[in-house]
Amino acid sequence: MKAIQVGLLGIGTVGSGTFNVLQRNQEEIKRRAGRGIEITMVADLDTERAQQIVGSGVKVVGDAREVLANPDIEIVIELIGGYGIARTLVMEAIAAGKHVVTANKALLAVHGTQIFQAAHDKGVMVAFEAAVAGGIPIIKALREGLTANRIQWIAGIINGTTNFILSEMRDKGLDFDVVLKEAQALGYAEADPTFDIEGVDAAHKATIMSAIAYGIPVQFDKAYVEGITKLSATDIRYAEQLGYRIKLLGITKRREGEGVELRVHPTLVPAKRLIANVEGAMNAVVVNGDAVGTTLYYGKGAGSEPTASAVIADLVDVTRLATSDPQHRVPHLAFQPGQMRDVSVLPMEQVITSYYLRLRVKDEAGVLSNVTRILADAGISINAVLQREADDVAGTDAGAGEPTPDHTDLIILTHDTREGAMSTALAQLQALPSVLAPIVRIRKEELA
Amino acid sequence: MKAIQVGLLGIGTVGSGTFNVLQRNQEEIKRRAGRGIEITMVADLDTERAQQIVGSGVKVVGDAREVLANPDIEIVIELIGGYGIARTLVMEAIAAGKHVVTANKALLAVHGTQIFQAAHDKGVMVAFEAAVAGGIPIIKALREGLTANRIQWIAGIINGTTNFILSEMRDKGLDFDVVLKEAQALGYAEADPTFDIEGVDAAHKATIMSAIAYGIPVQFDKAYVEGITKLSATDIRYAEQLGYRIKLLGITKRREGEGVELRVHPTLVPAKRLIANVEGAMNAVVVNGDAVGTTLYYGKGAGSEPTASAVIADLVDVTRLATSDPQHRVPHLAFQPGQMRDVSVLPMEQVITSYYLRLRVKDEAGVLSNVTRILADAGISINAVLQREADDVAGTDAGAGEPTPDHTDLIILTHDTREGAMSTALAQLQALPSVLAPIVRIRKEELA
Repeated sequence: MKAIQVGLLGIGTVGSGTFNVLQRNQEEIKRRAGRGIEITMVADLDTERAQQIVGSGVKVVGDAREVLANPDIEIVIELIGGYGIARTLVMEAIAAGKHVVTANKALLAVHGTQIFQAAHDKGVMVAFEAAVAGGIPIIKALREGLTANRIQWIAGIINGTTNFILSEMRDKGLDFDVVLKEAQALGYAEADPTFDIEGVDAAHKATIMSAIAYGIPVQFDKAYVEGITKLSATDIRYAEQLGYRIKLLGITKRREGEGVELRVHPTLVPAKRLIANVEGAMNAVVVNGDAVGTTLYYGKGAGSEPTASAVIADLVDVTRLATSDPQHRVPHLAFQPGQMRDVSVLPMEQVITSYYLRLRVKDEAGVLSNVTRILADAGISINAVLQREADDVAGTDAGAGEPTPDHTDLIILTHDTREGAMSTALAQLQALPSVLAPIVRIRKEELA
Repeated sequence: MKAIQVGLLGIGTVGSGTFNVLQRNQEEIKRRAGRGIEITMVADLDTERAQQIVGSGVKVVGDAREVLANPDIEIVIELIGGYGIARTLVMEAIAAGKHVVTANKALLAVHGTQIFQAAHDKGVMVAFEAAVAGGIPIIKALREGLTANRIQWIAGIINGTTNFILSEMRDKGLDFDVVLKEAQALGYAEADPTFDIEGVDAAHKATIMSAIAYGIPVQFDKAYVEGITKLSATDIRYAEQLGYRIKLLGITKRREGEGVELRVHPTLVPAKRLIANVEGAMNAVVVNGDAVGTTLYYGKGAGSEPTASAVIADLVDVTRLATSDPQHRVPHLAFQPGQMRDVSVLPMEQVITSYYLRLRVKDEAGVLSNVTRILADAGISINAVLQREADDVAGTDAGAGEPTPDHTDLIILTHDTREGAMSTALAQLQALPSVLAPIVRIRKEELA
């Protein structure tokens, strides 16, 4: 089947990320979607720069309407942003019978009702996973994954700039103005950061989530919006002393029989909650449903490729639905049957990971050097060594037997190595006369 | 349009949860799906108990084949479990042209390839969101939300029983055997906990995730499986001292050009990672994709209604796809157009939340009593009061001005109250002569 043709309006950070990821992973995406997805036309005011990004094989135009007029283009990606020309072009794309994928939260939070109505009337889709929380598939979770639930409330860190600033204020005990300048210098905040720091961007996203959660129209104009500009280091510190952290949250709550709450403001959150520990520019959304209870979704909320990840997920969804063949349902194992690969699972000896080792050894000279020599000979690199005298481990140590004063625990963290090499080295270590008990080996993952 | 009819095989914990949630939220689910979804027939060996759960309106039979033989039933939910009769019935349901929704991870991890092939040949769907991580929509995230990505690795806490045991071992410094008995007494572990504590259940789920992530057949027999039975409190403590926590993780990794890793074992994880802070019976899955980076999905991995949440999400998905009307696509705002409610967003004065207040006050007798009287008169209940002498806040306090010895900070945490009442009380507080600076008011949410 012929690839579906996509037109891209605006090739900035997210646009070029979308183009690049779609190219890089085209084979794997096609195996999933069952059909190729190709950006064949790009509109951008800076045609020269655009052409450099996409190369000579893709048509670049300065006028977005050339894309809309192209009958071969079935999907239009709108990455221009704002309420102005973006709105006009989205409405024209819908009128031209094209499906639309957009990351434009401002547009949808303010004009979503009109846009979705037009799309419904025309029988096309407007997909917007990238509009909320970047690469986190939160729209899909809310619209599909949690469809059994009456959503009770949603609370999200949905603006990375402000979360970065709040994390820095807390870490360094600095006030807002100081950290804002640092964030601007590092590129985490824009030259005009108003939309971020005043909470407007978060309110756009919270508005979209409230509409999906409760089946109500988007009502951005009713949202309460308070930013972080007045927060002081003092209050962050006091909050900490009381067991709380301050986060800028977008919150929407169902108040049975009364209405819904929709608000963005700095919020004290118990420090032990996962969301209180979401630091830097990361995003996270907590959703509470009556059946599922509390769930959380975490990831990068902005940036070129994380946002592209969401844009392309929408492209695949739209492609599947625009292709009327029933084989274009979501495949059981994500990839189309016939497109599965018979990749083998590696035997455990070939697994690469790092290790925690605990050796109960005689407290005598030369033990550590014998142990480290065996590891070095096996090509296993040591990350950290902790030696604990018998006294340190006595008492509470029910599992490992009562240590006596001439025994000591040697704890070793290794760097990545092959399990096979580790097993061989362990056998040699176990044979050392100074090793008094079975060696404990637990694998370690940094998960970075 | 007539409701789609569903047959339920096995009405235990998850089955009754599914029935109850489907009943309780039927109106909202129908507004989303665009079509009613009704369990009209239930098969269970204990017909009497089953009939009590579902009431007289639903047909209960002792023989599952009566459900499969009913031509009105379009979807069969299999909640029997295990590889035996469940497998036979799933294959027969497929052969009878029925869509299948199942929570049976053991069945899919071992016989998935054959089952999905049969479903593909027959043109029916087998949906299994509930098979991995209960109510967390992780299958949907992997199959659809992250479809742009080459998945690099997945690491998950996907067995609540073992995570509960490990959390207790760490909290209380106890060894495995002691905590297992406690977990059994509390109902967190089964009388025969082998599948959980030996890592088999986690391996079933990791196997399914690896197949979806990499487009490979399910290969449970190749998985490395190591449980938590040999873990001692000693190693949990040493890990802690080194900045790590020990979790039972299901891990699968892509090793470019070599194969994939698939393994379940106790794993040291840096304590600062979110997943290291997932405690008790909760589940969480971390997914790393080349475009999106690291994402995390958290929630209840087991239990009646959380698992039902996933089963019903599958029912809605299948219903949408089995209903050939294009209006049965996922609606833009989750609910079918025409099924939106015009619920109003409450004005901020009507929002209910708790508060953090900071008052810079004169350090003199009677201040606290004046403050608390105003709050009490406004019906605002106090949760905690912290008084900080000027000395405590001096020095690092750039934002709030240099306090002098006769000033003090009064920090108050309130219980839930209406914003309107709080604003009125704040105006009164601000007017007190002993209040020296603008009062800081930050909202607080427990997010429990």
